[in-house]
Amino acid sequence: MKAETIAVGSELLTPDKTDTNSLFITARLNEAGFQVHRKTVIGDREEDIAALVGEALSRSALIIIIGGLGPTEDDLTRQAVSRILRRPLAVDTDLLEAIRGRFASRGIAMPKINERQAQVLEGAEVLQNPRGTAPGMWIEEKNTRIVLLPGPPRELQAMFLASVAPRLSGLRSGRQMVRRTVNVVGLSESEVDSRVSPIYTSYPGIETTILASTAQITLNLSQWLKPGETTGELDELTARIAEALGDTVYSTSGETLEEVVGRQLRDSGNSLAVAESCTSGAVAMRITRVPGSSDYFLGGVLCYSNEAKQSLCAVPACLLEKHGAVSAEVAEAVAQGVRRALNSHIGLSITGIAGPGGGSAEKPVGLVYFGLAGSRGSGHERRVIPGDRESVRERAATYALAYLRRYLLAECRRNPTP
Amino acid sequence: MKAETIAVGSELLTPDKTDTNSLFITARLNEAGFQVHRKTVIGDREEDIAALVGEALSRSALIIIIGGLGPTEDDLTRQAVSRILRRPLAVDTDLLEAIRGRFASRGIAMPKINERQAQVLEGAEVLQNPRGTAPGMWIEEKNTRIVLLPGPPRELQAMFLASVAPRLSGLRSGRQMVRRTVNVVGLSESEVDSRVSPIYTSYPGIETTILASTAQITLNLSQWLKPGETTGELDELTARIAEALGDTVYSTSGETLEEVVGRQLRDSGNSLAVAESCTSGAVAMRITRVPGSSDYFLGGVLCYSNEAKQSLCAVPACLLEKHGAVSAEVAEAVAQGVRRALNSHIGLSITGIAGPGGGSAEKPVGLVYFGLAGSRGSGHERRVIPGDRESVRERAATYALAYLRRYLLAECRRNPTP
Repeated sequence: MKAETIAVGSELLTPDKTDTNSLFITARLNEAGFQVHRKTVIGDREEDIAALVGEALSRSALIIIIGGLGPTEDDLTRQAVSRILRRPLAVDTDLLEAIRGRFASRGIAMPKINERQAQVLEGAEVLQNPRGTAPGMWIEEKNTRIVLLPGPPRELQAMFLASVAPRLSGLRSGRQMVRRTVNVVGLSESEVDSRVSPIYTSYPGIETTILASTAQITLNLSQWLKPGETTGELDELTARIAEALGDTVYSTSGETLEEVVGRQLRDSGNSLAVAESCTSGAVAMRITRVPGSSDYFLGGVLCYSNEAKQSLCAVPACLLEKHGAVSAEVAEAVAQGVRRALNSHIGLSITGIAGPGGGSAEKPVGLVYFGLAGSRGSGHERRVIPGDRESVRERAATYALAYLRRYLLAECRRNPTP
Repeated sequence: MKAETIAVGSELLTPDKTDTNSLFITARLNEAGFQVHRKTVIGDREEDIAALVGEALSRSALIIIIGGLGPTEDDLTRQAVSRILRRPLAVDTDLLEAIRGRFASRGIAMPKINERQAQVLEGAEVLQNPRGTAPGMWIEEKNTRIVLLPGPPRELQAMFLASVAPRLSGLRSGRQMVRRTVNVVGLSESEVDSRVSPIYTSYPGIETTILASTAQITLNLSQWLKPGETTGELDELTARIAEALGDTVYSTSGETLEEVVGRQLRDSGNSLAVAESCTSGAVAMRITRVPGSSDYFLGGVLCYSNEAKQSLCAVPACLLEKHGAVSAEVAEAVAQGVRRALNSHIGLSITGIAGPGGGSAEKPVGLVYFGLAGSRGSGHERRVIPGDRESVRERAATYALAYLRRYLLAECRRNPTP
């Protein structure tokens, strides 16, 4: 069945902002058997939105309208849809109370303008918004379903999963898109492609795309299946690709690198402390993104200055003087220091030059040392990471997690759990 | 004048890929006096592309069609435009020789399928492609200009700058878009709107949009100016909005919150150390995103566990037992502790419950305390932040920076630089 998305917002028609919600929506619609055949971005003008929805009614079985549900004067999706469908808007008193309650729980009186968000189209079902004040709507108009969703990604995603996906499953046609992912760290995009393209090109029924982001590579495999068809071919290709890429594959289940490392730490009973210099919290941020990470993550230090390396990690001044802050010796000393300071099983450190300044011929911008200290001593890795400041920091965080993953993998092979 | 973009390609309708060419194009079109009022992505189906171009003819003075100009069977832009404009395609022999020559220069015979790329629409001007084989086209149809550009960004950008921009400058209405931004922290989107909508609605010539992201609000003001018109009205509205929002405005120049705080620290000669618990590095990450931040940022501690609060910040165990880790007393003690540990002028701390677990009736998920210690003692702030784990963490980082900004603002008023 044919679906289209409409993203509403003049800010999405500036050079600064793009519609990314439609990627999440497309993935979920494909899973539910819908093919997205058109995506449109339109500005905050009631007559433009209404005209576009009118066109879409004649060509799509499902129309997902994103954004324009806020409380302000430029939030016009409700009015536009009301106009084109000729269905009046009326305040839903239950909804109004719920919105008022949301503000009250934060100790704030609901501003008058938020009343607009309690307006519901005649005959529409209200979709609850657990993460914001803007409710969504589900509207059936002849043979077309129209879904109104809020623009903020967190609100949209939660609402879609809770309220839209279940309704779509009742509509689904025969075909369904099935997807697999393979996540890789430690190889470049072209290295991955040259290893796996001889494999995936022999599966013409499966679409394989390779995406690179901050030192991680994701292979997306997707196939449309008719009722009764199995995922056998897709699983076979996934397994062959994973085999060709070996240990660089950290996940074929969609787990993130920080989730994988977290599971390894938990399973092996190891606790972790980190000492970050140039990344300044990026590694800790990623590790603690995983709920329950306090079970294995004790904390760490941000030893941005040399003084901090000395006072927080007991790195001897002479070591800093002799080798410099960005060196293998200091990386290992900092890892040992933070391990001692927090009394953790493992200490992980990152020290480097993120740029734009601070580089030299001997130690260029992008040079990063990673230190790792455990019960059997310490080790280090050295990398020169290309890109600008932000890119160096983000990639360094990925490489630190990848280093820790390999260390735990090797430890696990030495001491397999019975 | 009104413009729209059409990106052609089924791969842009998958969950993995988005149209980013339109951002480059939008920036160039705005500079040339065109307003982009709609952006569409459409798949590789001739009838869909033709229908969309037909619709666009009735509403836009300029239509930019991106992609679908390759040599393969799913490159259908030429045929679709030919069909809807009822203008035949014919091989341009000069163009064919040029494409053949491009292959020859690389020592390759031109594949037969590339002949298709020499097909030109009746009455169209050919736009040279210095970086690839797909030529573009410039077509005038009644009052509308239609431009066909290749999809690869480096080919598209070079062709646009060399061949499209000069043609547009001949069309320019003289109008040009001028933009201003106002960045706010500490008010909700609806609070901002209720304060400023009475002001901006009295400037109908200026488009004002309000965007919220992680506890920060951005107002974008834009106005089309004719030759000879000044930015006076736009600057007046910007100033009136800034006045109405008072101290909550941290920037009208596009500076980020972390850049503003960094400038305040530098100007006042203060150094900073942070102690992060639930945010686990998010504040330090943002502060150090600014190049040169090592001038005022010394580092900090990630005191995720109670043990870390005690060992790294010398928080007494009895304080943790009596008030709990998430309390005003511990927030202030941690701020004082990190200030001492790093010997900084200011210590900033965050302790809270990011969720999803760990909340109670008395201390719900989202409860965050911020502590600040300086030469004149310490203080704290308390907030209950809505949203999921990631959202609580990101917003808490913003509020911490906002607290520091207000502290430095007040200190600056007490001790103005001569």
